[in-house]
Amino acid sequence: MRILVLGGDGFCGWPASLHLSERGHDVIIVDNFARRAADVELEVSSLTPIAPLGTRLAAWRELTGREIAFRRLNVAEDYHDLLELISSYRPDAIVHYAEQRAAPYSMKSSWHKRYTVANNIGATHNLLAAVVESGTDPHVVHLGTMGVYGYGTAGVRVPEGYLTVKMTGDDGRDVEQEILYPANPGSVYHLTKTQDALAFAYYNRNDGVRVTDLHQGIVWGTDTRETAIDERLINRFDYDGDYGTVLNRFVMQATIGHPLTVHGTGGQTRAFIHIRDSVRCIELAVENPPERGDRVRIFNQMTESHRLIDLAELISRLTGAEISFVDNPRNEASANELAVENRRLLDLGLEPITLEEGLLREIGDVAAKYVDRCDRDKIPCRSRWTRAHPGADRPATVYAT
Amino acid sequence: MRILVLGGDGFCGWPASLHLSERGHDVIIVDNFARRAADVELEVSSLTPIAPLGTRLAAWRELTGREIAFRRLNVAEDYHDLLELISSYRPDAIVHYAEQRAAPYSMKSSWHKRYTVANNIGATHNLLAAVVESGTDPHVVHLGTMGVYGYGTAGVRVPEGYLTVKMTGDDGRDVEQEILYPANPGSVYHLTKTQDALAFAYYNRNDGVRVTDLHQGIVWGTDTRETAIDERLINRFDYDGDYGTVLNRFVMQATIGHPLTVHGTGGQTRAFIHIRDSVRCIELAVENPPERGDRVRIFNQMTESHRLIDLAELISRLTGAEISFVDNPRNEASANELAVENRRLLDLGLEPITLEEGLLREIGDVAAKYVDRCDRDKIPCRSRWTRAHPGADRPATVYAT
Repeated sequence: MRILVLGGDGFCGWPASLHLSERGHDVIIVDNFARRAADVELEVSSLTPIAPLGTRLAAWRELTGREIAFRRLNVAEDYHDLLELISSYRPDAIVHYAEQRAAPYSMKSSWHKRYTVANNIGATHNLLAAVVESGTDPHVVHLGTMGVYGYGTAGVRVPEGYLTVKMTGDDGRDVEQEILYPANPGSVYHLTKTQDALAFAYYNRNDGVRVTDLHQGIVWGTDTRETAIDERLINRFDYDGDYGTVLNRFVMQATIGHPLTVHGTGGQTRAFIHIRDSVRCIELAVENPPERGDRVRIFNQMTESHRLIDLAELISRLTGAEISFVDNPRNEASANELAVENRRLLDLGLEPITLEEGLLREIGDVAAKYVDRCDRDKIPCRSRWTRAHPGADRPATVYAT
Repeated sequence: MRILVLGGDGFCGWPASLHLSERGHDVIIVDNFARRAADVELEVSSLTPIAPLGTRLAAWRELTGREIAFRRLNVAEDYHDLLELISSYRPDAIVHYAEQRAAPYSMKSSWHKRYTVANNIGATHNLLAAVVESGTDPHVVHLGTMGVYGYGTAGVRVPEGYLTVKMTGDDGRDVEQEILYPANPGSVYHLTKTQDALAFAYYNRNDGVRVTDLHQGIVWGTDTRETAIDERLINRFDYDGDYGTVLNRFVMQATIGHPLTVHGTGGQTRAFIHIRDSVRCIELAVENPPERGDRVRIFNQMTESHRLIDLAELISRLTGAEISFVDNPRNEASANELAVENRRLLDLGLEPITLEEGLLREIGDVAAKYVDRCDRDKIPCRSRWTRAHPGADRPATVYAT
């Protein structure tokens, strides 16, 4: 297949691009290096020494003989470049990672909120408008987040996107309908993903655009089979308070002798997926497209759920690291249950990599190897969800990020 | 009260500004003249000869002694100007009309889709971010649309924003929850209003921003008590295929001897409100703000529902005009039922002006007075909802605009 990967230089986009190329697909990466620019802004670097994209692509060609092309453009701004690319390349699939993906980053300031909204809504809508205007029929595969559901599930297992509900009709009888699971975002970043979902539903219904929306859990791990071949292919490892994800941060903290920073009580339950499963899910989604006329297909791209405190205690047991409870910067419930349906990717053949010591040690090995690159000052999360505001003195609700 | 009216030069914003001023409030209009610019683009004018805003404001001052101030800025782009205005003026209420408001305009081309998304999402999010950053606590009153609900109601009366549903819990028992009514937009314009609703819900929950979202029906009529005082205060009358609303278009068509253009079968049922009730609803919403800590308050700002064919037949009976059935440019159901709950504005004191011959004649009188300004070539709707697209060959669903 011909595949465009929008945001193909990022933490998930890069290993997915390599994996799709390795599977024999023709891949073009589109990126504007926004993620690398955020490193410059935040004065932090990936713990792993990621190579420039040109070096990455040359190494991949040298090592495998496979060619991945690259087009630098800003999907949220360069509409006509995007349209021209889709019209001429006529991709079978477009994997859409071209969004600002960190909740804490989206809450740092009004600029970060506005950038996240303009970039994410603009990128998704430009993509959909360009697909329609091009007259082509690519399958759009979007990276969403489990966070669109929120984490107040009222005892209902989180379904894959759609929820069957009963409402009372005018005649007093129950009417059953299937609806998009009610959105409940926990940050401006998550808000944009819920707004994306409405755009996908509309363009699917009005224009027949085929879409798979992948509601991904928190990604852990760093390397995939392909990125591990050569150091020039190495993937990002973010440990900072904005872009670092919780499990990688714990392992990193343990490695450098920093206490494990648990936000609040650690009673928050979250969904997880290993980076190798993440790229495998992209492969499964791309190679099994929806039919024409199908509604937006939604998969929960996660393999397991854990309470954050349980993860911290596991790492602590393995490494002897201390646990430090810090004020939760997020406006979220201190604890929640989470049960998630994820049959659809399993049915397509996903064999989950679940949490086990070997893989945690592997992350620790990566962290240890590059420990000298760590800036300890970047570890705390300095974004705050709320500020002094006359109306903001309510207690946090059961809704969470 | 101190009130900012964003988009205060438009069809609803202008009479609302006058009405709030007449009620003794201190009003500042914010506008970027986007609506007048669209007239230039579409090569059409309001049937009524609207005066420049400076002339309007001078006439209002001359006639009533009341001062309405004006700030030209683009709410979707000039964030810091907006922030400075909110921070210094410290409004009690901000009425937000600063959005592209025509469904056909939003569907004309990919540029129009992208403009509508960037403008509407940008304006709403800039407003919310600026309210939070300013540290002030204005009540945000947003003009939404009945179209966010869609028109496939499955026999359920459309509630005011929130719907009680039952879902099946993990233990097999029904769990009852109140959710935002599932969004079902019928155009890119309507899509932006459903995305707005998610932004309001998020900023209300996270930051305590007080919001009233008014889901307005199709507005008919032209003049309010205030705009009728002097011709320099006259309101817009749009009759063109993009910005003209259906009932005003029928009356206008009858007046000039043009057949009444019914899209499709005319079996579409829609909600309506007279322009005088629209401005009265703004007054009621502004003067009865929600409490701090209240969730987003949603009112259905409509007074009656009618099938379009019934309206055409009524006008035809009164005037002898012929009815012409034309292809429906919209991707919508050919017929639908619509029952709407609207108790909350009635409870605040709204006394509905419903469809009656006297008011229709009044519109006809306005149309007759300015008939020489009419460009008949601008009457048809030339926007099309769908184009040749491989996936777009499904029949239209029950969902409608």
